Amino acid sequence: MHVKKLAITKDNKIYPIYDLNRSLHLNEGGVDRELLLKANHDGIIKTTGEQELLLAPATFKDNMAYIKQQAAIIIPKDIGFIIAECGLTKDAVVIDAGAGSGGSACTLGALCKKVYTYDIHKEHIKVVKENCEKLELTNVEVIEGDITTSTPQEQVDLVVLDIPEPQNAIGTLKKALKQSAYAAIYTPHINQAQKFIASLDNDFKLITVIELIQRRWEVNDKQLRPKHNMLGHTAFLTIIRKFARGV
Amino acid sequence: MHVKKLAITKDNKIYPIYDLNRSLHLNEGGVDRELLLKANHDGIIKTTGEQELLLAPATFKDNMAYIKQQAAIIIPKDIGFIIAECGLTKDAVVIDAGAGSGGSACTLGALCKKVYTYDIHKEHIKVVKENCEKLELTNVEVIEGDITTSTPQEQVDLVVLDIPEPQNAIGTLKKALKQSAYAAIYTPHINQAQKFIASLDNDFKLITVIELIQRRWEVNDKQLRPKHNMLGHTAFLTIIRKFARGV
Amino acid sequence: MHVKKLAITKDNKIYPIYDLNRSLHLNEGGVDRELLLKANHDGIIKTTGEQELLLAPATFKDNMAYIKQQAAIIIPKDIGFIIAECGLTKDAVVIDAGAGSGGSACTLGALCKKVYTYDIHKEHIKVVKENCEKLELTNVEVIEGDITTSTPQEQVDLVVLDIPEPQNAIGTLKKALKQSAYAAIYTPHINQAQKFIASLDNDFKLITVIELIQRRWEVNDKQLRPKHNMLGHTAFLTIIRKFARGV
Amino acid sequence: MHVKKLAITKDNKIYPIYDLNRSLHLNEGGVDRELLLKANHDGIIKTTGEQELLLAPATFKDNMAYIKQQAAIIIPKDIGFIIAECGLTKDAVVIDAGAGSGGSACTLGALCKKVYTYDIHKEHIKVVKENCEKLELTNVEVIEGDITTSTPQEQVDLVVLDIPEPQNAIGTLKKALKQSAYAAIYTPHINQAQKFIASLDNDFKLITVIELIQRRWEVNDKQLRPKHNMLGHTAFLTIIRKFARGV
Repeated sequence: MHVKKLAITKDNKIYPIYDLNRSLHLNEGGVDRELLLKANHDGIIKTTGEQELLLAPATFKDNMAYIKQQAAIIIPKDIGFIIAECGLTKDAVVIDAGAGSGGSACTLGALCKKVYTYDIHKEHIKVVKENCEKLELTNVEVIEGDITTSTPQEQVDLVVLDIPEPQNAIGTLKKALKQSAYAAIYTPHINQAQKFIASLDNDFKLITVIELIQRRWEVNDKQLRPKHNMLGHTAFLTIIRKFARGV
Repeated sequence: MHVKKLAITKDNKIYPIYDLNRSLHLNEGGVDRELLLKANHDGIIKTTGEQELLLAPATFKDNMAYIKQQAAIIIPKDIGFIIAECGLTKDAVVIDAGAGSGGSACTLGALCKKVYTYDIHKEHIKVVKENCEKLELTNVEVIEGDITTSTPQEQVDLVVLDIPEPQNAIGTLKKALKQSAYAAIYTPHINQAQKFIASLDNDFKLITVIELIQRRWEVNDKQLRPKHNMLGHTAFLTIIRKFARGV
Repeated sequence: MHVKKLAITKDNKIYPIYDLNRSLHLNEGGVDRELLLKANHDGIIKTTGEQELLLAPATFKDNMAYIKQQAAIIIPKDIGFIIAECGLTKDAVVIDAGAGSGGSACTLGALCKKVYTYDIHKEHIKVVKENCEKLELTNVEVIEGDITTSTPQEQVDLVVLDIPEPQNAIGTLKKALKQSAYAAIYTPHINQAQKFIASLDNDFKLITVIELIQRRWEVNDKQLRPKHNMLGHTAFLTIIRKFARGV
Repeated sequence: MHVKKLAITKDNKIYPIYDLNRSLHLNEGGVDRELLLKANHDGIIKTTGEQELLLAPATFKDNMAYIKQQAAIIIPKDIGFIIAECGLTKDAVVIDAGAGSGGSACTLGALCKKVYTYDIHKEHIKVVKENCEKLELTNVEVIEGDITTSTPQEQVDLVVLDIPEPQNAIGTLKKALKQSAYAAIYTPHINQAQKFIASLDNDFKLITVIELIQRRWEVNDKQLRPKHNMLGHTAFLTIIRKFARGV
């Protein structure tokens, strides 16, 4: 893992610590290398600015939060919905394309048996490999290639598609999905979903097209209302299953 | 697994088959026991009503869909968000309370290493055990007891609380959570979240209070609009982390 | 007005009274004609079932609530948004098409100077006229005709379109709208809005495409949450203005 | 009206012109005073930067858009809902408090017969009076005073309350509302609505507590999705009616 520890301030600000052998230089003041090492009982250390810091372990999620991002990442509400709606298990094998920064490949890789992630961009491939290494995920296979023309190495339980023209991958879905398995198609625009669905044949059953509107709330002693600032949209999620005759 | 196969009609209606040694009696007609067994190549069989059925394997999700429900279940959008937001991994250990029908315990159990699920109602405990058995989940430990007064068997990476007065479980959270670990509090009412948050002390950091509004769309050649029928609300999700001093 | 009075029960159930010269027959019991007339001080009367009823005046809104409905009506959130967003005033002249049951024509007629409402269906025209009469709106002119091929009698401040292919009415909009005036296009499907906007030329400026998601809350001493039952969708509202060169 | 004309650029940017006797100085270049006056046929004028401007009439809405704002204004989705849900007509008399910048008082004043608007802040009163004057609204009476302790001059059809503790105004509502009339309570926080409702007695019937979630869409040839940027919340609207016994 690349994030070794977290340093939490009195105001609940969180700093990731990438190297326990180097001194810290924060707004709250510095922390000497020796002091940092001594505090690995996860207790309190004091900065040169006389501020207390709590050193705490970094989780997988903290490491996810600081991966290299070269493309937008499927955020928790959406990747979480896919995981739960498609019934992912730790025995599952998954195909993910395009990999982008590897966000969904890593989230899925931490949960299931094996992930194959495809991308056509060399620079994405490099970042995804780097991120998998940082996250110590050895079950994510990063493949440079076009999912729409690729032959999958094995049949899988779930395909997650985040590509501009998912209808071009329907042939791959037929080959790649086990019978009864799920595909989740992530499209920013609703007419992309419409085009994809229009291209499906009888080997697939449409389960749902859904959007999740995420609202954060301001909740404290005085306030009890949704926040004014809000992410209006990420994507529409189309969930289908393969039920092909004569398989 | 209790669902052995799925029978899919031409209209994409799905019937679960619980016993492959018993004849089917469907709206589409009957299927004799012998015929049912012969078709286990997952191909087509014909009912006495001359309707084609596709026999397909049942997945974990299909089995989840038909568990015994005695209490409302945390639906995919919410349990999925908790999984992704709290960075669940297959190495994680989780506490879940109240178990209800065991929906979230089973979803989590299929993904992570170990789940301890608590409920104070004997009749819930019975159903949860039954559901875990049907789903062949051996890593879910079902405990009859009150989470608010219980001493956890080990420290965990995630606690999911779905109880009426979660503020009573803050003591348990302190003991049960590893340092840096997450708790997700599921409350139908926003003032429940407010009360819970007001009861937190400095050992916890509030990450977010969120609600996910789920909208299904009508998407076909002619229609491109949200469905009129909509589930307006399930619950508010409060996500916190333990960052306790002097742990 | 066709609703003469309201009868409100102890449980806050509201009954419209259409005729003060006829006895009432309610679930709560009957009220004799004589008694009904005596109670026009808006006080309490008792039914034969010994239930108290409060007689109260009927407002314009009560009369709107009980008009004859032959087609779906633009509901308050949408017609209200159009009124406020387009800056309607009591001096405004408005065109409305198709009239449907006359819901928006009547709401607008009660507020502004003059409404011309068009519909191609004879049976709608009949209902709209009937409804205007009941609501005593003399400033609503009901016109049997196709807005897409009609020549408006005067230029107006606002056009409200609720027709399946609004792009066919762009020629009418050019002629019908005063310079700087607004049109509000109501379309259930988002691709209808897309087609309409694609057909606009430089004489129009797109102001916004909007949807209003309406959520009712359960609020009492114990409950503080959105209702489970929710209307998922009515329509998308496209607001444009005419800014034509060389007018 | 304070906005005399609009100047619209080729890119559909709109500039308000407050004084037709003064030269314009815009990003697109200047326009000389003489040229400006000549163009009052509402046609095209050219800036010194050789950019075309379309001069168009300013509507009431344009004037509303540029009123002086000292406090947040109730936006169209909310004031529009109140207007339509409460069945406002041009014959209606309305009380509005607190006035704030006068936004709702002016919107209502442009539509109905008479508005009394209250505010306890001298500086608000000054701004509201100024805004009413600019908008040439002579039917809006601006009253410096506390609605919770005021005696209304006449009974009204609608009261719009936007004050921090609306429960303190329930006595005024009883006196101010005609029998069967409506009050709309605008509260940013849901527990404000809860407190208000808890304070109501049998003289009032709760109609609804509602929130309107407003989503703007990106709609063009290529894009068909909600905008990423979104206003997450304005307020909860509580609508009640007065049905008092013995009035």
